[in-house]
Amino acid sequence: MSLLSIVVDVLEALKLDDDVNRIVINRAVNICRNRPHPWSTRHPYISWSGLTDRSYNARLLPDKPYPSESARGTRRPPLEEVAALFKRLPGTPQRLCAKSTGLFPAFAQYLTDGFIRTQLSNDRAREDRRRTTSNHEIDLSPLYGRTEAQTAVLRLHSSAADMRGRLKSQMINGEEYPPPLCDQTGAIKPEFAILDEPLGLKKDAALETRLSLFAVGGDRVNATPQTSMINTLFLREHNRLAGLLGGAHADWDDERVFQTARNIVIVMFIKIVVEEYINHINTTEFPLQADPKAAWHADWNRPNWMTVEFSLLYRWHGLVTDEVTWANQTLPANGLLLNNKPLISGGLARSFMDVSANRTAALGLKNGADFMLFAESGAIEQARVNNLAGYNDYRRATGAAPAEDFSDIVGSSDDPAEQARLDALAAELEGLYGDVENVEFYVGLFAEPVQKNGPLPELVSDLVAMDAFSQALTNPLLSEHVWGDPANQRLAFTDAGIAVIKATKTLRDVLARNVPHLGDGFIGMTREEWERV
Amino acid sequence: MSLLSIVVDVLEALKLDDDVNRIVINRAVNICRNRPHPWSTRHPYISWSGLTDRSYNARLLPDKPYPSESARGTRRPPLEEVAALFKRLPGTPQRLCAKSTGLFPAFAQYLTDGFIRTQLSNDRAREDRRRTTSNHEIDLSPLYGRTEAQTAVLRLHSSAADMRGRLKSQMINGEEYPPPLCDQTGAIKPEFAILDEPLGLKKDAALETRLSLFAVGGDRVNATPQTSMINTLFLREHNRLAGLLGGAHADWDDERVFQTARNIVIVMFIKIVVEEYINHINTTEFPLQADPKAAWHADWNRPNWMTVEFSLLYRWHGLVTDEVTWANQTLPANGLLLNNKPLISGGLARSFMDVSANRTAALGLKNGADFMLFAESGAIEQARVNNLAGYNDYRRATGAAPAEDFSDIVGSSDDPAEQARLDALAAELEGLYGDVENVEFYVGLFAEPVQKNGPLPELVSDLVAMDAFSQALTNPLLSEHVWGDPANQRLAFTDAGIAVIKATKTLRDVLARNVPHLGDGFIGMTREEWERV
Repeated sequence: MSLLSIVVDVLEALKLDDDVNRIVINRAVNICRNRPHPWSTRHPYISWSGLTDRSYNARLLPDKPYPSESARGTRRPPLEEVAALFKRLPGTPQRLCAKSTGLFPAFAQYLTDGFIRTQLSNDRAREDRRRTTSNHEIDLSPLYGRTEAQTAVLRLHSSAADMRGRLKSQMINGEEYPPPLCDQTGAIKPEFAILDEPLGLKKDAALETRLSLFAVGGDRVNATPQTSMINTLFLREHNRLAGLLGGAHADWDDERVFQTARNIVIVMFIKIVVEEYINHINTTEFPLQADPKAAWHADWNRPNWMTVEFSLLYRWHGLVTDEVTWANQTLPANGLLLNNKPLISGGLARSFMDVSANRTAALGLKNGADFMLFAESGAIEQARVNNLAGYNDYRRATGAAPAEDFSDIVGSSDDPAEQARLDALAAELEGLYGDVENVEFYVGLFAEPVQKNGPLPELVSDLVAMDAFSQALTNPLLSEHVWGDPANQRLAFTDAGIAVIKATKTLRDVLARNVPHLGDGFIGMTREEWERV
Repeated sequence: MSLLSIVVDVLEALKLDDDVNRIVINRAVNICRNRPHPWSTRHPYISWSGLTDRSYNARLLPDKPYPSESARGTRRPPLEEVAALFKRLPGTPQRLCAKSTGLFPAFAQYLTDGFIRTQLSNDRAREDRRRTTSNHEIDLSPLYGRTEAQTAVLRLHSSAADMRGRLKSQMINGEEYPPPLCDQTGAIKPEFAILDEPLGLKKDAALETRLSLFAVGGDRVNATPQTSMINTLFLREHNRLAGLLGGAHADWDDERVFQTARNIVIVMFIKIVVEEYINHINTTEFPLQADPKAAWHADWNRPNWMTVEFSLLYRWHGLVTDEVTWANQTLPANGLLLNNKPLISGGLARSFMDVSANRTAALGLKNGADFMLFAESGAIEQARVNNLAGYNDYRRATGAAPAEDFSDIVGSSDDPAEQARLDALAAELEGLYGDVENVEFYVGLFAEPVQKNGPLPELVSDLVAMDAFSQALTNPLLSEHVWGDPANQRLAFTDAGIAVIKATKTLRDVLARNVPHLGDGFIGMTREEWERV
């Protein structure tokens, strides 16, 4: 038992853990200037449009144009040379993350696809990497849609006594999933035309692919069966709660049952974000609680607005392994793209166990799965389109000392082989950038070593914590006047809903309510074998 | 010299007036529950849509359905009987306001039309009194438009050296006005089709009426020449600043000149709102300053969202007099509707003086101009559509004692004739509502007597102050990270712009910069003859 864990126990015994929780959260948020951000990607100066048009990303640091973009040894080496930094050397195995299972990136992707929404499109002409389609809230838009019109087509709209408030769904092998997006010819059903088309779906995609797609709220949900799995879980939970609420409130119409079930599911989801997911990232032993009181009187409680930096630092493509084992089969990971079949054939409970039995790759340079390199290239391009400041600028902005040389970025090791690898990496960065001040934000983030007790490098981890707390705990459902007002809390969630939220800390808790017999197979983001370093 | 004014002088001498300003503002805002509001007009319960869909109004108090709507003596007497409360008895003269000139309602209307924007339309089928087209910010939308597309058609978009950043305008009699909305046939010009059509403009309106309309950002600007006058002033100031900025920054494009001029004009406008307009309403002698520091660390600094109550309590139709004197002519006030000719024929400076030479009617029941009764009827209907709680509920919500009988609402007087009038009014209210708890919000607001040293009744005044400060000082241009950061302040406004803002306290200050020779004719919201009671 470590000293810290003893301190935590003492604090809990003294009922001081709420205060500690608030202090820890405030310290995490206050590493950097808070919202309202003076800057956005709208203009390289301060404008009313920039301060109000939320279809552009906010930014932590202002636009910083670079003097030259082409020559080697300047700030901006050629894009393909920078992207190659993420490529694994031929014949070397992927380094793996000590702490995380495959459930961690699955949840991270599902979570962030809801509000980090660079304006991408299957029609390249409609793409704009300065803009976003985000609602800037954790609103479970992957489940419910981004707009009221999308939500409407996802809902069943039944007034039948036991069907009020539900989302549309289908049954396959006796299990509930979202409805099929396409008809038997592979065309998107007219009723779902208003949904955002699955990103990456090609016009000539195979019929088999199209038939496995679900009609869902988010254009990235169908991207992998892992994200579809998380979405299916919350679809079932929504419909389960709708059934409960409808049964308990015979006088409520479909609309009120739907709205109340959604309130409960959103808050439950935020609770899992903090208490399972952030605590997985957390490198200390102090378990954080999703206590919105920390936000009610905080100076950082200002309108949410996702930043371009948040969008970039959350690209954890590097966690993707070359292969995934699912239902006793080892498959190349790129065979899972836009393919819900492994989920459907395994069923939801088995899938959660299978995903939790996989490991993830270690975040970092020279370790990527080949088929994800296009995404790294897109991220670097996005940073350049938006004239992001350099990596060292962000270290300074968060109160860290700037790196003085390349070894300050990549770190060091007692293991000679590992040190040789780091030396080679530092030398390669120096060859590209010349001066450490020239290192780009996105490259520097992932050139850092992964932290000892967590899955992330330090600057990524610090910036994730800042944005996670300051944008999750400000959710309108968690405000002082809804969650914090007993009468309004009961009205928004019902006593039964509050009890369900309180009883939920993990995805496993939700899953156990939505499959017949879960058993005790391992489901979690932190590897069973993981031991604190 | 009163005791309070001595105290104010002492505080100023001690440099404590900033603190007092903050304390006074905080006390004004904290009379009632602050944002985020748990309620909106979207649903009569708490829902995600209600908490996020800002096309509905927020609400201070929840939906409170009334048991009966038709019978006399219940909470809701027939609409026409309630509307008749605002009608003056035949043959009695309008009571006049002791403090205000016509410039006060002119500015009040122009200001609030920018963000209190009930979804009304010339096409009744598109009206919805639960909804709003507000951006929920003081963004000068009457000048610049509600949307970026509207702003685009109002801009000149010239790259000529001395024309960059300007709004379109026309010259009449050597003076600058917004451009004409219609062509010579009276049809709205295609370039302005995206603007909101002037409210109240009938399909069969006279050609002469149509030709006097301006192409402007707001659908209520053309409503009267008084509102057009205020808008013309800020159009000229915008274009004057654009000329200055363009001259000083040869490297700036049209976009940057426009954006920077707009930044300056919006903040200048907010300064006038607090330092001229709110100080006119203010019943104390402590002059309030538009010091945004009061908001930076305040718990009430939460996303702006106009409430349905704010929308109703700001309907000061009762200030409208039967007649207006303008350019040496006394005209019936309803002859000024959708008629910019008095403004154009008098010119801007003369018009400001003429409007300032007019008095206003006293707010209150039994005193309205006949032609405004339709608007009172619409307001009462709007409160009913939205199931507003009763007048006494709002007294309780703001910490005031509820009225125990009808004379608690209408007040009392030492003057026997006035007391007789008040007794008759109390009796009429009792006849309509039976129990004082049944009095509707809108009726109770204006049944109260006007305050001794201000133009408004007490509850109206308290709620205006709460919303004014909590929504004006939270403007993104005034944030700690723009106005409060010297480098960003200079970037957003330029040194010249900051100097202009600092030099502006009143509409007169702006006018003096935008007419050749203003002279010293009286221009102001507070009557020259007014004496504190």
